[in-house]
Amino acid sequence: MEKALLYDTTLRDGMQGENIFFSPEDKVKIARRLDDAGIHYIEGGWPGSNPGAQHFFELAKKMEFKNAKVTAFGSTRRQGKTCEQDGNLQALINSGAPAITIFGKSWDLHVESIMQNTKEENLAMIKQSVAYLLSHDKEVIYDAEHFFDGYKANPLYALKTLEAAVEGGTRCLVLCDTNGGSMPCEIDTITRATIDHFKKIDVPGLIFGIHCHNDCAMAVANSINAVHAGATMVQGTINGYGERCGNADLTAVIPILALKMNRECISSENLAKILNLSRFISETANVPPVNSRPFVGKSAFAHKGGVHVSAIMKNPLAYEHMAPELVGNKRRVIVSEQSGKSNIEYKAKEMGMNMGKSGVNGHQIVSSIKELEDDGFEFDAAEASLKLIMEKLTEQFVPYFELESFRVTVEKDKERPCCSHAMIKIKVDKETEITAAEGDGPVSALDNALRKALTKIFPQINDMRLVDFKVRVIDGKDGTDAKVRVLIESRDENNIFSTIGVSEDIIEASWQALADSFQYKLSLDDQNKAK
Amino acid sequence: MEKALLYDTTLRDGMQGENIFFSPEDKVKIARRLDDAGIHYIEGGWPGSNPGAQHFFELAKKMEFKNAKVTAFGSTRRQGKTCEQDGNLQALINSGAPAITIFGKSWDLHVESIMQNTKEENLAMIKQSVAYLLSHDKEVIYDAEHFFDGYKANPLYALKTLEAAVEGGTRCLVLCDTNGGSMPCEIDTITRATIDHFKKIDVPGLIFGIHCHNDCAMAVANSINAVHAGATMVQGTINGYGERCGNADLTAVIPILALKMNRECISSENLAKILNLSRFISETANVPPVNSRPFVGKSAFAHKGGVHVSAIMKNPLAYEHMAPELVGNKRRVIVSEQSGKSNIEYKAKEMGMNMGKSGVNGHQIVSSIKELEDDGFEFDAAEASLKLIMEKLTEQFVPYFELESFRVTVEKDKERPCCSHAMIKIKVDKETEITAAEGDGPVSALDNALRKALTKIFPQINDMRLVDFKVRVIDGKDGTDAKVRVLIESRDENNIFSTIGVSEDIIEASWQALADSFQYKLSLDDQNKAK
Repeated sequence: MEKALLYDTTLRDGMQGENIFFSPEDKVKIARRLDDAGIHYIEGGWPGSNPGAQHFFELAKKMEFKNAKVTAFGSTRRQGKTCEQDGNLQALINSGAPAITIFGKSWDLHVESIMQNTKEENLAMIKQSVAYLLSHDKEVIYDAEHFFDGYKANPLYALKTLEAAVEGGTRCLVLCDTNGGSMPCEIDTITRATIDHFKKIDVPGLIFGIHCHNDCAMAVANSINAVHAGATMVQGTINGYGERCGNADLTAVIPILALKMNRECISSENLAKILNLSRFISETANVPPVNSRPFVGKSAFAHKGGVHVSAIMKNPLAYEHMAPELVGNKRRVIVSEQSGKSNIEYKAKEMGMNMGKSGVNGHQIVSSIKELEDDGFEFDAAEASLKLIMEKLTEQFVPYFELESFRVTVEKDKERPCCSHAMIKIKVDKETEITAAEGDGPVSALDNALRKALTKIFPQINDMRLVDFKVRVIDGKDGTDAKVRVLIESRDENNIFSTIGVSEDIIEASWQALADSFQYKLSLDDQNKAK
Repeated sequence: MEKALLYDTTLRDGMQGENIFFSPEDKVKIARRLDDAGIHYIEGGWPGSNPGAQHFFELAKKMEFKNAKVTAFGSTRRQGKTCEQDGNLQALINSGAPAITIFGKSWDLHVESIMQNTKEENLAMIKQSVAYLLSHDKEVIYDAEHFFDGYKANPLYALKTLEAAVEGGTRCLVLCDTNGGSMPCEIDTITRATIDHFKKIDVPGLIFGIHCHNDCAMAVANSINAVHAGATMVQGTINGYGERCGNADLTAVIPILALKMNRECISSENLAKILNLSRFISETANVPPVNSRPFVGKSAFAHKGGVHVSAIMKNPLAYEHMAPELVGNKRRVIVSEQSGKSNIEYKAKEMGMNMGKSGVNGHQIVSSIKELEDDGFEFDAAEASLKLIMEKLTEQFVPYFELESFRVTVEKDKERPCCSHAMIKIKVDKETEITAAEGDGPVSALDNALRKALTKIFPQINDMRLVDFKVRVIDGKDGTDAKVRVLIESRDENNIFSTIGVSEDIIEASWQALADSFQYKLSLDDQNKAK
């Protein structure tokens, strides 16, 4: 089996993405997870360029890595200086990282117009910087910046820049599509031509790598093409974070290399950790996880179309290209207006519901749900409300509490901010509870009042909190009379669940979603007691 | 120049994405925008399968399309039925759509294990359904479901299914990678082999299409490969919405076809509309736009790295693979205060404002605005509010009315729907006006009351109406205490303008946006009188 090397630059290139920021301590935690997942190289930052990166390398010196080599990133020496005089190269050595990646210019446009340099001095910068770093007992990887554009403009010169790095002593040349504009066939042709060129020169132990950007939505495919063309190392980031449209997404590259290209690069045990690694890094970056992300997204194996669902119940291969568990994911079935009877039956089974009782059949339930969806209810985003609706439709719903009344008031005087209060009266069996609360706004006041009333009778409500709140105006053309859809996500120790409400009145819509969340929580607790 | 045909299935396959939902009215608006952008086919839905889709086709019958053919989607007839008996085929014909796309099974696994059918009956279903629809004077496109998996398992049978469709009379065969698991080289090889097969048979006017899913993060590259291999039509969705990981993202496919593959498929004028089309559809789906989306994302041409910034100011080619304006985007540089100041001065000039008066300088204004934006105000979506803020910051703002107080009440008793009222008292010079109103919800009640009070003093308010109302929770993690952003679009005879409000209290946020809209309207009218 051919090997592939996984090189992660989440902590450096990833941080060049807008809104992506990791503190040095975040970087340490991420580096531990990457090492644990079997990544071969962890590029930790550019120590010459910012104190945060420097700090990370200090911390990394005290860490022990099972699998990965921590790598420091930087540029070739400045033109006109010696390596000894170059502060950037010194910082790379002082970082203590066992491996160093330096980038150099491969495109004559950059060398001449942008850097105002000569082609010869550029070659000298590359060769000398590589040699200098190697003499300090570091592994040296050479990133050929803008390689594909450089090759298209002036192939001889682009190859010369690589030769200079090889003459300096490196045995790893990474071809970078820095602007992200290359087509897959160009990546293929140019990578092959480059590898052939070096085969003729015959440099023992020389390997090639690829570093793509996603400006044409093809960074993963381009990376894969380069591997097909003979590259061994793939550079990318977890979740594809990075400058502009990001880098090649390793959460896609790794499963493809391992499962579809038979490359030896990660154990199956580590492959199954990929989903958690992805989530950990998006949590740490405080960026919402992308549900549609291939392999690791929440929706990656979520089936909505009725035809799809009835098929996968017979044979998962029918609509899944691989088993979700291999990357730590799982199959989900969604119920929506696109559903057929199979979706409903699957869901009922999953929820432990008995569909047969009431004599209401699957078709009728599907119809009722489709009507509600036509009115604006989106059940695929609110499975807890779906369960309650299904219980209501099959006459199995037993409410834990009933509303007697509520009053919500918002007051504003001159420039002072609004004040909101809610009074609520609920009934549980024969007992009533009446209370009031304030809040940051009418919905918050109502939520606080309901929670306060319920917690008196059901103390377990304390274990539950609301973690996400979304409002959507369904048809803005109706202006302030428009229907509003409210989605709420709630969480207790073990469960996350979503509920929904729809009305022209945002308070009514929020009421529906809130009430459902508490009814559902209370029924979950009863189910657990029964077990 | 070779042609390419753009086939959009945002309204059908796109809706199979989790959390993607369009009402029939949304679909009409989207269809208009797609038509306006020059898309060739707009797949509107599966009329046989849900009332929402049926409703869209009813509405579409009354629309006039400049460029696009509205297309209805469905399956081949059911096994064992005749075409005349098949309700699904009837629904397709009755949809009134000029073009129909039907999908059939290409993979023997599906035919035999999933559908419990015979290979022969499957071929008959395909051929007869195509012929039947053609006999009703429709253009018929055939989607070969699971084509690539089917070809890998049993190439002869897969080709036979296509032949059946051709015998039925279609001249457009779309090869679908339904599970999204195919590698780019497989797409290339199989597409070429299939096209060659039909070249030998020689069917005049026969064209091929491609329909990819993004389960391996390669839907765009796979689509591009198929076009290289001879496909003419590309099916995809705007923003790549769709089942599981989505469909091929047309916002990437279209620029690549037009700018990198020299395919005639879209005018440069329409290409420059792609960004707005992308935003419009994500707004309508109420899904936050993905900033890192290639070509159209806010960050697609945003340069953060210092090296990048100084380079692109010398030559944009240095770090950009194409000019952003071609797709309606623009370069952004994560800037110093200096550039920010220029933006503000430009905007002030555009609004006819005098910046110099108050002694507050450009830097201070930029700082204040950045602080507000940090709090959630998005002024690029609300230029009327921006103008008012700038007037306030330069002490040029003169309010037409002031708020004395308001009270908004929402009442609910048991199962009865909520009732909302608002009382409001405003002051205009020395006059006060106090009134009350009802509404469908608290925001509507407040809007009605404010409008009623103002119209007594300023009758021209009658000329103005609110035409769009959007609410977005800024950080759902804060639950019902989360900040809310309200955007309002208003219109009078000659102008459309947008205003914004931000607060944890939705009533406060709505108040800000509403008050701004009236202040702005009244100042516009004065400006017009002055001319």
